[in-house]
Amino acid sequence: MSQIDQILNHVDANLENSLTRLFDLLRIKSISTDPEFKGDCRKAAEWLANELTSIGVPSQVRDTTGHPMVVGHRTGEGKAGPHVLFYGHYDVQPVDPIELWHSDPFDPRIVTREDGGKMIVARGANDDKGQLMTFVEAMRAYIEVTGDMPLNITVFLEGEEESGSPSLEPFLDANKQELSKDLALVCDTGMWNRTTPAITVMLRGMVSEEIVVTGPDKDLHSGFFGGAARNPIHVLAKMIDSLRDDMGRITLDGFYDDVPELPQDVKDMWAELDFSQEEFLGGVGLKMPAGEQDRSALEQVWARPTCELNGIWGGYTGAGFKTVIPSKAHAKISFRLVGDQDPEKIRASFRKKMLALCPPDCSVEFHEHGGDRAQRVDFTAPALEKGCKALEAEWGKETVLMGGGGSIPVVGNFKRDLNMDTLLIGFGLDEDQIHSPNEKYELTSFHKGIRSWVRVIAELSKG
Amino acid sequence: MSQIDQILNHVDANLENSLTRLFDLLRIKSISTDPEFKGDCRKAAEWLANELTSIGVPSQVRDTTGHPMVVGHRTGEGKAGPHVLFYGHYDVQPVDPIELWHSDPFDPRIVTREDGGKMIVARGANDDKGQLMTFVEAMRAYIEVTGDMPLNITVFLEGEEESGSPSLEPFLDANKQELSKDLALVCDTGMWNRTTPAITVMLRGMVSEEIVVTGPDKDLHSGFFGGAARNPIHVLAKMIDSLRDDMGRITLDGFYDDVPELPQDVKDMWAELDFSQEEFLGGVGLKMPAGEQDRSALEQVWARPTCELNGIWGGYTGAGFKTVIPSKAHAKISFRLVGDQDPEKIRASFRKKMLALCPPDCSVEFHEHGGDRAQRVDFTAPALEKGCKALEAEWGKETVLMGGGGSIPVVGNFKRDLNMDTLLIGFGLDEDQIHSPNEKYELTSFHKGIRSWVRVIAELSKG
Repeated sequence: MSQIDQILNHVDANLENSLTRLFDLLRIKSISTDPEFKGDCRKAAEWLANELTSIGVPSQVRDTTGHPMVVGHRTGEGKAGPHVLFYGHYDVQPVDPIELWHSDPFDPRIVTREDGGKMIVARGANDDKGQLMTFVEAMRAYIEVTGDMPLNITVFLEGEEESGSPSLEPFLDANKQELSKDLALVCDTGMWNRTTPAITVMLRGMVSEEIVVTGPDKDLHSGFFGGAARNPIHVLAKMIDSLRDDMGRITLDGFYDDVPELPQDVKDMWAELDFSQEEFLGGVGLKMPAGEQDRSALEQVWARPTCELNGIWGGYTGAGFKTVIPSKAHAKISFRLVGDQDPEKIRASFRKKMLALCPPDCSVEFHEHGGDRAQRVDFTAPALEKGCKALEAEWGKETVLMGGGGSIPVVGNFKRDLNMDTLLIGFGLDEDQIHSPNEKYELTSFHKGIRSWVRVIAELSKG
Repeated sequence: MSQIDQILNHVDANLENSLTRLFDLLRIKSISTDPEFKGDCRKAAEWLANELTSIGVPSQVRDTTGHPMVVGHRTGEGKAGPHVLFYGHYDVQPVDPIELWHSDPFDPRIVTREDGGKMIVARGANDDKGQLMTFVEAMRAYIEVTGDMPLNITVFLEGEEESGSPSLEPFLDANKQELSKDLALVCDTGMWNRTTPAITVMLRGMVSEEIVVTGPDKDLHSGFFGGAARNPIHVLAKMIDSLRDDMGRITLDGFYDDVPELPQDVKDMWAELDFSQEEFLGGVGLKMPAGEQDRSALEQVWARPTCELNGIWGGYTGAGFKTVIPSKAHAKISFRLVGDQDPEKIRASFRKKMLALCPPDCSVEFHEHGGDRAQRVDFTAPALEKGCKALEAEWGKETVLMGGGGSIPVVGNFKRDLNMDTLLIGFGLDEDQIHSPNEKYELTSFHKGIRSWVRVIAELSKG
């Protein structure tokens, strides 16, 4: 039996134990946004550092001004492949609305569906405890069977991913030498579908703004002032309506300047995917792609920039009616970015357009809410080819090179601060309800995820 | 000393007691739109019925399906003038945003301004508790000094004026005989300025709607769906922006069909008023009239129809940022009406236009919030002349015949259901912040308001 088959058999034989360990981690209430759970976050970090150390990857809990990091290394002489840095996050989203959960979010369980499929249900089952443990368990199997890892490895886990990663940049800056490796591996993305593996090769960036339009300096009675007084909701509505034209294109000056066309081979691959626009939109009660009308829905969500209204409020919003002309109207607006779009250039163009639409007797304030460039993987990188090959061997299907609609900011930090490329391999499904009640992770995602990493590690170690 | 002077002296001598009684009423939290304050509304009704009865106007609290009415009568043989019905409302607006109040809205106080002027500050200080108490205190003084009222009088107070008066029509229908008198007196309007009395001779009507646009059937993550999923805030913004053109004209089909031009003599009177557009708008932090660009600001607020956004909400409105694509977006929209505009015709035209702008995979719901035609007073009515004369005697200045921007729907009900004309005399000022934080009523409005009613009652009783 080949060495790789021995390791995979070991994974299969020890699945119950792997699950027991995952469940221990899932029971820790490591909600990073809520100060009440500060102690639980540290507990999760300590649990992981102990676990990694016991496997044979000596690790430490490292303090920050927020929740701690976990860093571990296992290195040796004469290994062929790249030194990889594996990244994951041990913190989870809050559980509200708690009443919609069918079971305690921190009491993990295996639920069998009517179709016979089994799933792990708990907060963090997918995002990101279940995903990160696929890699940890793959390392364990490798070391238990062969006595070593075939690659030099650094593990880097954070506990603030769900709350904006405030400590990440300072930590990377302070530990640049220790963490700058040849390649980052991140397990926080999805498969194409339940049986088809995927590597995410494009992630959209984002720039977000809160805008406040002030008209009159106090709320007015529309009986006295209606007609003559400028209504800030009207002004804001005009601003919002101006952001997109009838063809779904965003109208900011220079918005598409740094948006590249897809490479033809990626276009071809996406065109061949069994993607149903009707099912994708139908699943959420919609019919027609609302973005650029000359682009497919898949392009719209994976490869095109967008403008989204995330919130709006102003005036009287309670029950009944109040004939008020409000002093202020507010909106939260974000732009998903692709290619080389510069968040600060887009922000400036947005503000300029909004200011131009602001009548002389109104004023407009902007509050910045972060900005990240889009991320792309080099399509010709050898690691990408190896990853595809390894996943194909495990799942028996060609690996899909996916776009990703959401951003994973750490990928940008790795590139910018550590000059390190990232390979995004994950086993989640769109239906996994991450950030929502009844989050789950397929048992096959967990099991074959571990096996997949064994194969990826082996493939990368061929040098 | 003439009888009228004796009564006026009595008013002056008892001002402190009048204020004490008003403060008792202001302390009752009679917010009619909020079910939490149902008991307080009844308490205000009971307080008023007791008060009127103790003065010598036997009154009762009369149940409705909503908040109760207060009805009292004092009649006698051989009185010369008309039987008048005095109308006021004891309910008040909600107090939000509470954090902008400088003192507890239900702990009334006298505040002395830098210019030495004194004002009564509390929710309802003007609208309508302060105003209605001017009439009540005038009756008290009349009866205390002369032993009787010189007119037959009916007092009719409601507690749902700020929430659309749902019980008003049924109550008028059921008590037509009892309430149909010769003339209604209403104290819920304003003066021309702090020293110049006014009678309001035109009131705009209103039709109001709540609109709900639904896009996706659940809230979506903009990372997964952004670009392809229709955003209901976008749709709503387009709808709102479509309601007015760049010249400030409202774009609904047929909107101006039943809008008459002002009679030339009224136009002339208004042109002679010392009205400063700059001061009117400057007082609330604005500069330019925002309505129809070929009309003066005074026309815009007194004699022209309008469209107002009273509230808007949707998506995430809390602190920080959430990259949600909301399922729903909401707005509260109202139209002030003039002349013969038909609220239901305007409502239908509004709905038709909104539906036409709704994309096929979105839906739109409408919730009706009442509709009232505009009201105009007969310029040749003898009561109007008597009212002007009485006010002139009190204030020493000619009475201005004003347009009124806001609607007082009860005036329409009195005309339509009881065939009764209304004389609108009030002592509020534009700056009184009714419906807003720090509502106030000038102490002179209260004091000389009581004195004014004594004179109006005396004038009307001359027959």
